[in-house]
Amino acid sequence: MIRFYNGKTLRCGGGLRLTDDEVWTSGGEIVYVGAQRADRPAFEREIDLGGDLLLPGFKDAHTHTAMVFLRSLADDMPLDKWLSEQVWPNEARLDEEAVYDLTRLGILEYLSSGITASFDMYVKNEAYARANIDSGFRTVICSGLNNFDRDVENIEREYLHFNRLHPLVSYRLGIHAEYTTSMERMEYAVSLAEKYREPSFTHLCETKAEVEGCVERYGLTPPQLLDRLGFFRYGGGGFHCCHMSDEDIALFAEKKLWAVTNPASNLKLASGVAPIERLRRAGVPLAIGTDGAGSNNALDMFREMYLVSALQKLTEGDASACPAESVLEMACVGGARAMGLENCTDITPGMRADLVVLDLHRPNMQPENNVLKNVVYAGSKENVRLTMVEGRVLYERGEFFVGDSAEHIYEKSNAFIRKIRG
Amino acid sequence: MIRFYNGKTLRCGGGLRLTDDEVWTSGGEIVYVGAQRADRPAFEREIDLGGDLLLPGFKDAHTHTAMVFLRSLADDMPLDKWLSEQVWPNEARLDEEAVYDLTRLGILEYLSSGITASFDMYVKNEAYARANIDSGFRTVICSGLNNFDRDVENIEREYLHFNRLHPLVSYRLGIHAEYTTSMERMEYAVSLAEKYREPSFTHLCETKAEVEGCVERYGLTPPQLLDRLGFFRYGGGGFHCCHMSDEDIALFAEKKLWAVTNPASNLKLASGVAPIERLRRAGVPLAIGTDGAGSNNALDMFREMYLVSALQKLTEGDASACPAESVLEMACVGGARAMGLENCTDITPGMRADLVVLDLHRPNMQPENNVLKNVVYAGSKENVRLTMVEGRVLYERGEFFVGDSAEHIYEKSNAFIRKIRG
Repeated sequence: MIRFYNGKTLRCGGGLRLTDDEVWTSGGEIVYVGAQRADRPAFEREIDLGGDLLLPGFKDAHTHTAMVFLRSLADDMPLDKWLSEQVWPNEARLDEEAVYDLTRLGILEYLSSGITASFDMYVKNEAYARANIDSGFRTVICSGLNNFDRDVENIEREYLHFNRLHPLVSYRLGIHAEYTTSMERMEYAVSLAEKYREPSFTHLCETKAEVEGCVERYGLTPPQLLDRLGFFRYGGGGFHCCHMSDEDIALFAEKKLWAVTNPASNLKLASGVAPIERLRRAGVPLAIGTDGAGSNNALDMFREMYLVSALQKLTEGDASACPAESVLEMACVGGARAMGLENCTDITPGMRADLVVLDLHRPNMQPENNVLKNVVYAGSKENVRLTMVEGRVLYERGEFFVGDSAEHIYEKSNAFIRKIRG
Repeated sequence: MIRFYNGKTLRCGGGLRLTDDEVWTSGGEIVYVGAQRADRPAFEREIDLGGDLLLPGFKDAHTHTAMVFLRSLADDMPLDKWLSEQVWPNEARLDEEAVYDLTRLGILEYLSSGITASFDMYVKNEAYARANIDSGFRTVICSGLNNFDRDVENIEREYLHFNRLHPLVSYRLGIHAEYTTSMERMEYAVSLAEKYREPSFTHLCETKAEVEGCVERYGLTPPQLLDRLGFFRYGGGGFHCCHMSDEDIALFAEKKLWAVTNPASNLKLASGVAPIERLRRAGVPLAIGTDGAGSNNALDMFREMYLVSALQKLTEGDASACPAESVLEMACVGGARAMGLENCTDITPGMRADLVVLDLHRPNMQPENNVLKNVVYAGSKENVRLTMVEGRVLYERGEFFVGDSAEHIYEKSNAFIRKIRG
């Protein structure tokens, strides 16, 4: 058992609130949250928070982890050139080993940012899952079915396989996007969602061109088309959601579909700004993702949280839009619920021990006018003191404990870069 | 003498370039930059960079350091309410001691962000200067003359006093803003600029309402009005510059006036996005500032650099807008030149030793596809390994060396907060 004490604990049930509760974990679970007790067991480790903040880990609700190899490989070029000259040719070079090594690197960055779980859509899922398991990191794989997949039925096999593979891994149904997936394949994805009564996810309304193309092809926006097909019958949601009409927003609100926002990527690729404040006011459930490091270029939940709020203040022309607490809730709670990780949404007994300690003894967290607003508006990776997943400390004070050294993981990623550069 | 070796050194003369030069400093000065040499003096300290990046420090070209006490005191409220209910009443409580203590705190945050000099406009300049000198930090104070100043001629005394006070401190002329300064006082500021042949700076085109008000009062935009008055006869520039007309941009380009951008603050207060790419293409010299922590809420040059580029990509609809190298040059070189710190613009003998080491052995700096793009698009405070000002290491691996402990500085800031909260 591990004990966290002498700090501030963020509890999330029924709205966020700061308490001075201490927290005990046993194995992968939170077993006690409350006042200091006289009857204490023998702890394996007691962590003195020294006034620091213990909170449920951030969930990265949309990412492509292994794309970390594209970081800074080809920035500052137009989107079409970036895709055709850099992303696609280089992605074709990815093999199982590369995806494993690059995923290991991405996980280090998640941990350094206080992220305890990812909702990932990419390629070579077997190697991807293994990298997560070997690192001790939690992930939910999302099917990215599209027209380039040779074996359509593989997603059903993946669904069955990855949901039974390991406690740290699960799998959700979905497609890459309407514009990359034929009607026949979309209908197949819907049939699986029906068969297993599962939610479905997809890239959605990321760019204006995507929406226009869909309207041209089908006379409907992507949310409306997918809804008509039955894609959202058991829930689910969309990644990006930049270009949503009022009807799209109403549809998401009515069906309680998750809108996962990726503000840094959408800025950097000039895609747009998702109408998060309008979605929020309409009651749409919200979560935050980094997208891949090829576009972002960081996997940094602090950057994303700041942008979610600050961009809404700009686009709404209202400095009170999208307050800090709502953003923190998206990062800690919303993401988990979008991913189906209902047992990673709070610090309370029975929840999984996916926890983060933020160092408040740094200048950017001072003075302590408002700890939660400080985290959202001024926090950075320098504040991440400790990251725990499933009860194991995987990161603490700059050091990683993931079964391999950071330097070795860096070297493998750089070796892959040398290889693809020839 | 201090020696930095075994790393990458960013030289800035004639465009940015990475070298493997080693660097020696003596006192406050850079004395050698070049290949390893057999004839080495006895060094006081030899710093093995281990492949890390040595670069000229970032310059924060517009800030209000002591406003750090307003961080998270009153966010998520409309601008007018924020100013009238929180900023102004609380600022009225600031005394010399508070400005000193709060400035000390702000300086810690600059150091943790790799910032080696600030261009500050605020109140109680004597206490402010003392906090900088006591911390070993470099600052340029900008006059913020406005209608609330009781003693107009104080700015001339300040100009003469602070430019002779200490090697770390200098002073530039200016006004707070057109909308806070009467014509008589603006004319007085111009007369000082003429008398001393000095550049002049001011808040400029920060909000749409500011520009509209000026046009209503004088029939001219703020840049055009100030130019007519002779304010820019010896150069200078504006802070914020969000709402610039084509004519304003042409004026800035023709007179080589500095446009200092503050993207995070402008987002968070819903002020707008400065047209940095258009300014850049027009040849306007550019620099970056954090603005005060009351609005930002962080003093974080990584956040600002990312935003400068990413917001232009969005507003221009072009992912190739405002490339990383141009932004890094604004932060390291442009800021220094705007502030009159011509001897802090490069790593070359004769320059002041205002240097930063960025840790490249962190996941966000890997793989090393492109070190400079990594810094701008993925860098964070966690990468700041060391910050040196005037040849003295003031920050290294999380520890501060500023003549007082961080905890003591935090405590003083929190004591002030308790006092104003009564």
